Amino acid sequence: MSAFPKLTAEEAAEYISNDALLVCGGFTAAGCPKVIPLALAKRAERFHADRKPFRIKLLTGASTNDAVDGELGRARAIAFRAPYQADRDLRKFINDGDVDYVDGHLSRYAHLLRQGFFGDIDVAVIEVSHCTDDGELTLTTAVGSAPVFCRNAKYILLERNTYHEKIAGFHDLYDVELNHVPIPLRSLSDRIGTKTLRVDPKKILGVVETHLPDGIEAFKPCTSVHEAIAGHVVDFLLREIRRGVLPVTPLAIELGTGNITNAVLKHIGTCEEMPKFSVHGEVLQDGILELLTQGRIEFAVGSSLTVTDPWLQKIYEREDFYKERLLLRPSEMTNHPEVIQRLNLVALNAALETDIFGNVNSTHVMGTSVMNGIGGAGDFARNAGLSIFMLPSTAKDGKISSIVPFCSHIDLTEHDVDVIVTEQGLADLRGKSPEQRALCVIENCAHPDYKPLLYAYLRRAKSGHIRHDLTAAFAFYDAYEKTGDMRNARL
Amino acid sequence: MSAFPKLTAEEAAEYISNDALLVCGGFTAAGCPKVIPLALAKRAERFHADRKPFRIKLLTGASTNDAVDGELGRARAIAFRAPYQADRDLRKFINDGDVDYVDGHLSRYAHLLRQGFFGDIDVAVIEVSHCTDDGELTLTTAVGSAPVFCRNAKYILLERNTYHEKIAGFHDLYDVELNHVPIPLRSLSDRIGTKTLRVDPKKILGVVETHLPDGIEAFKPCTSVHEAIAGHVVDFLLREIRRGVLPVTPLAIELGTGNITNAVLKHIGTCEEMPKFSVHGEVLQDGILELLTQGRIEFAVGSSLTVTDPWLQKIYEREDFYKERLLLRPSEMTNHPEVIQRLNLVALNAALETDIFGNVNSTHVMGTSVMNGIGGAGDFARNAGLSIFMLPSTAKDGKISSIVPFCSHIDLTEHDVDVIVTEQGLADLRGKSPEQRALCVIENCAHPDYKPLLYAYLRRAKSGHIRHDLTAAFAFYDAYEKTGDMRNARL
Repeated sequence: MSAFPKLTAEEAAEYISNDALLVCGGFTAAGCPKVIPLALAKRAERFHADRKPFRIKLLTGASTNDAVDGELGRARAIAFRAPYQADRDLRKFINDGDVDYVDGHLSRYAHLLRQGFFGDIDVAVIEVSHCTDDGELTLTTAVGSAPVFCRNAKYILLERNTYHEKIAGFHDLYDVELNHVPIPLRSLSDRIGTKTLRVDPKKILGVVETHLPDGIEAFKPCTSVHEAIAGHVVDFLLREIRRGVLPVTPLAIELGTGNITNAVLKHIGTCEEMPKFSVHGEVLQDGILELLTQGRIEFAVGSSLTVTDPWLQKIYEREDFYKERLLLRPSEMTNHPEVIQRLNLVALNAALETDIFGNVNSTHVMGTSVMNGIGGAGDFARNAGLSIFMLPSTAKDGKISSIVPFCSHIDLTEHDVDVIVTEQGLADLRGKSPEQRALCVIENCAHPDYKPLLYAYLRRAKSGHIRHDLTAAFAFYDAYEKTGDMRNARL
Repeated sequence: MSAFPKLTAEEAAEYISNDALLVCGGFTAAGCPKVIPLALAKRAERFHADRKPFRIKLLTGASTNDAVDGELGRARAIAFRAPYQADRDLRKFINDGDVDYVDGHLSRYAHLLRQGFFGDIDVAVIEVSHCTDDGELTLTTAVGSAPVFCRNAKYILLERNTYHEKIAGFHDLYDVELNHVPIPLRSLSDRIGTKTLRVDPKKILGVVETHLPDGIEAFKPCTSVHEAIAGHVVDFLLREIRRGVLPVTPLAIELGTGNITNAVLKHIGTCEEMPKFSVHGEVLQDGILELLTQGRIEFAVGSSLTVTDPWLQKIYEREDFYKERLLLRPSEMTNHPEVIQRLNLVALNAALETDIFGNVNSTHVMGTSVMNGIGGAGDFARNAGLSIFMLPSTAKDGKISSIVPFCSHIDLTEHDVDVIVTEQGLADLRGKSPEQRALCVIENCAHPDYKPLLYAYLRRAKSGHIRHDLTAAFAFYDAYEKTGDMRNARL
């Protein structure tokens, strides 16, 4: 018997008041609380039915499961949200101006949180597989920001999920809060932290028992565009390895999540020339586990095990094998500039659009509608030894060019972007002046339908270190808004 | 007698051929070679008079003295330049498209250099105060990139400047080239490197003797606008210290160079409530030495001692006093993300313009004409514990607003900017959504002449997480180009 009160989800939700600052553990759907958020959404709906206000401020590790952002969002129970989301419904409320959303580098988030810029944390809802009477918690399939949440929250509600009984031992919880101390990590596989999280047991309000999988969905099959991008990326990595620019031992790669990443992993899987490597990043997805199992990936570090249930079962069945090859760390550690710099990572991330000078928009469609958020893209791109951005050259059946004269929103500047890849080809921008970069991006990455337009822009642009004509810089967007097709831009 | 040939500047310049990749030591005018670049400019002019081509690729630590960028630039001897410049003539050639210029984060520069993205270094010209027969060099008033230049250059030419006989002992040369090792710095005053630089003596082609000061000019007197900005900054720092958000011990501040920084230093000098602090940055200027001498600054670390000659004389007269309070490090160390993060710096940097959402342009006037370069602004802003950007709210007698709807060039994104300060006031953007940021910047930082226009922009901007109307986003620049005054923008 646990020392903490056993609660139903509904009882637990009663502890969360209107206007509370709530934080939820997890990172992606992995490790997210599953039943308390649902009960909280119902609680909010009851308040609203009685014409009483009920909206909370919500912070999480990253994106969440549907119970957190979906149910709470649709119940109109979220007034404020940080630092990352990827929910279709919540996104709409954010873009409609109904929810205030603060999107920022994941590596800076804990720092702002500790300094109180989001307010005092009222309640942390954390999924655990085990908890002892004296407050020693075993997290489940993600770490994310759970340690900093627990340390700074006034109260903690636990969901003890017996589905993940075998997860104990996969965590490496190092505390980066203390300044002035070098992080003692020399290799990404070094274990430098603890396997469990110590919290003040007096903070724990109670425990809700669950037995539920994370419900991670598999990626859709890769398209030929994704495969072409992956092909260019792998060819390029092999060239860089051959000429000795990439360190072959140890080669460490950061992989953002998504379909293109999936295609890259598949391509590596079929490419015998690609040496073994390690993975250090935020999210460990099925494709990484597949290569890890084959021995192609030697070690994988992430903040979440965002894998489908069949893969999770395989991990739990061979826990000893995977415990020697896999660690889950706080996102403050995976995304820490010091750590990323030291590992000399190759960072592979997706982008929404780039401009011809190498600036990257990874968050806002047409400069206004947020998709997800910057997440760790800035942390990795800025500090990696080699920073690669991948995107299809067009969207909406060719009506949108992903390569534009001037990005409608900039998350990563020209200074942080080494290489841009589309299905058309690859532009290596390192050591190049703006003029050289523009020609390189247009020639190698732009879709043939848009090359003449981009060259025309460059011709009409005035002289200057960076050639721009600000009256025409956004002509692509203007054409899309007026005609539904960027190819109608007049330049 | 030295083991190395004693050369005249003209003889030394003969070693540098057309199309060579030349690197010059120094950081700002401090520590720059003084006579070989001048002789090289004359050599180039002789070639040009004979209708022969003579243009080199030039890399430096940062900006230079007039002998390097000025004389070589005006002699049309520079074809390619990186990573930072601040010379009026060279800037014009860059903006006219005559010189290819690559502007990038100083912390990433050595990495690109080692990987060969600027080509193989033919000759390094390095100013030293001493050199031994076995290649032990004592640098002068700057370190900059001299260590990586010497390690990677095929040949080295030395200017031995006896003016700086007393500089020996101020340097701390730690080598960050080896990866996978934590930098063992715990406090900014820790000495972790060597006082001298070891180079392969076989690389040294010869030594040119000189006896010349750096010729650093004093700053112009502060204007009332600079003083108002400085006042807001110091008031804010004191508020943050009072509420416990800034660590008082040890408080470490990074100060970019320039008139506003100078005003901040003056303001701190007259403000008794401001606690003692340390300085960690690129450039140590007169104002820092003044507070260091008074004991208000406890320790100062920089990559250059960019002080006027009277201050340099004071340092050399009391060398023991200053050697206990001052260190010169490679810019790769001063700007290293790991170091900046660990010191939890307060970063104070100047900006050219910011937009209402918190993006900063620190390099390109009207999006096209480069001023200097990003230098270390991105290194410090991105990794500091608190990142502050300072700028006057208007330029050109009010005809230009420095606060615009959409920056014409973005060097630091909304994710890297915590606080914006103008003479009008201060906007703390931490933890704020885009809408909240826009209102905060307009209300606190914009000049009254421009507030109605900025509010009008926000009203016409569509809904969305970030409210923009891309057809009007650059209306301020359009008005300036057509009427010479941004106040005529129609919104």
